[in-house]
Amino acid sequence: MRFATFANGHPDGRLHLVCRHNALTVATEAASTLQEALERWEEVAPRLEAQYHRLNEGCLKDARPFEPTEAMAPLPRAWQWLDGSAFDSHGELMEQVFKLEARHALGRPLMYQGISDRFQSPAEPSVFPSVQDNIDFEGEFAVITGAVGMSADAEAGMEAIRLIVQVNDWSLRYLGPIEMKSGFGMLQCKPRCSMAPVAVTPDELGASWREGRVALDLRLSLNDDPFGHPNGAAMAVGFHELIAHAAYSRDLPAGTVIGSGTVSNTGFRQVGSACIAERRAVEILDLGEARTPFLQPGDQVCMEARQADDTPLFGAIRQQVVVRQ
Amino acid sequence: MRFATFANGHPDGRLHLVCRHNALTVATEAASTLQEALERWEEVAPRLEAQYHRLNEGCLKDARPFEPTEAMAPLPRAWQWLDGSAFDSHGELMEQVFKLEARHALGRPLMYQGISDRFQSPAEPSVFPSVQDNIDFEGEFAVITGAVGMSADAEAGMEAIRLIVQVNDWSLRYLGPIEMKSGFGMLQCKPRCSMAPVAVTPDELGASWREGRVALDLRLSLNDDPFGHPNGAAMAVGFHELIAHAAYSRDLPAGTVIGSGTVSNTGFRQVGSACIAERRAVEILDLGEARTPFLQPGDQVCMEARQADDTPLFGAIRQQVVVRQ
Repeated sequence: MRFATFANGHPDGRLHLVCRHNALTVATEAASTLQEALERWEEVAPRLEAQYHRLNEGCLKDARPFEPTEAMAPLPRAWQWLDGSAFDSHGELMEQVFKLEARHALGRPLMYQGISDRFQSPAEPSVFPSVQDNIDFEGEFAVITGAVGMSADAEAGMEAIRLIVQVNDWSLRYLGPIEMKSGFGMLQCKPRCSMAPVAVTPDELGASWREGRVALDLRLSLNDDPFGHPNGAAMAVGFHELIAHAAYSRDLPAGTVIGSGTVSNTGFRQVGSACIAERRAVEILDLGEARTPFLQPGDQVCMEARQADDTPLFGAIRQQVVVRQ
Repeated sequence: MRFATFANGHPDGRLHLVCRHNALTVATEAASTLQEALERWEEVAPRLEAQYHRLNEGCLKDARPFEPTEAMAPLPRAWQWLDGSAFDSHGELMEQVFKLEARHALGRPLMYQGISDRFQSPAEPSVFPSVQDNIDFEGEFAVITGAVGMSADAEAGMEAIRLIVQVNDWSLRYLGPIEMKSGFGMLQCKPRCSMAPVAVTPDELGASWREGRVALDLRLSLNDDPFGHPNGAAMAVGFHELIAHAAYSRDLPAGTVIGSGTVSNTGFRQVGSACIAERRAVEILDLGEARTPFLQPGDQVCMEARQADDTPLFGAIRQQVVVRQ
């Protein structure tokens, strides 16, 4: 199944199904919000499946064209957003260049809790306090879970994965190292994230969903210039293992969003990067200095992972940078 | 005004007013949950004030005795819980004993985002995965805010303080240093917090609310033995400054909870501590070794800050430790 949410004046919006080719959409009958659907998944999933089938068969006269740029985040707010850093090539590169402690060698997943009271819409301009903070994007995959009990294992984590989404985890790179050095981790350096318009069940990915990983290229562009297309299969641990890590000492409520961290491949010189900071690190290694600037007001960031056959899946995040001062 | 919340089958519970001596309670007329009241504060506060006045005058025939042990957390869930570490004597002591980097000398507040999809009730047993994690309590004060816009300053932060609460921020001390070293900060080491039963508007504290600080002793006991009574006035920065720090790159939704961090005074040898880890640090300095064990199953932790005249204010948190394995 594929889901999108449209504004209706309520913070959670109105849940819709989107057909298999992202061409048509229709309001769901079985639940009015994605949060509600996730909380009552066992009960409503069969009814949603039936309506999805009818939508794909072209049998729903209420269906209308799907306009991804009009969508909200499919889950416009969530009770927990727990973002990992599961691509070792990203972490190791940053550590090498910036002479950081080898955090990725600690033998346990890295994860922090970020803002989740609102996810930005996929075409919403993103507002930041200052260019001095070195504004960056981070292309990520994420999963949305059902309820997970404290100390659930990775197998239970796998069973709890309801949906896959694509996220832009905006980052303020000047503040990141300062906050990481404090031991308290990332707060000011992590503004609100955005989500691509379509959340999909794992079966929609077919063979591209494997071992709890999204084996698809995430294609990024900056001001319409290609920036990178790393593949999500390279996660050192799968989403099911990130869920088990997150749940060690806490219950995860239905609708918890678990992020992969910046998608990155060891072949970053060939496939490029999913954030500016990683490209700058490669430039420091190869050219002796960072040449790609961080984001400026008006810059356009676009990211989209499509199916292996190039048909649309999550839809695109396409956002403009706005700075308050 | 004073507020408590009682269970009604919904996660947000049913909002009640509590009279000035915590003797009587009555369901609120103007809003049914604290979250709703916070979102519509300008509109509902005058009506809540009028009902509170009638409750204190003994004019409400629906009022019933207030049983604090039956209450939920006054705000049973929130969109953000941002916990600071604003008592320098605590941070400096921990750094000295455990040879940590001088985080408290970085010149900026320390803060992380923790679990807020449910706050434990004040008399609820607290369940942890393992005693091996070195279970500890942390007595804190916290404020609940109205909506605060991105980059609000400390003055706007002060105006946004709606309520003051008392929090037990449970901590797993074995995991804390591991997570702090990772740079990603605290996740597994911070299980769900609990809240004392009564949330109060700042005016209830009279002269004990000053410069954005709660100038009251927080009295803690462990298995009914006094453990400490540090005073909340010693915060290096006030809650209004913590709010400004939190809001630098994010909007704070109405109902955001901002914590002080473990209450601690430089006279810790006289007044004791608000967590076991700090007492153990003092023991290491004075006796050459830590002697107070971390918590065991069945241990009873109690903490309560009362008015300067010893009348009840927030009510007590009194919880028993339960371990799954």
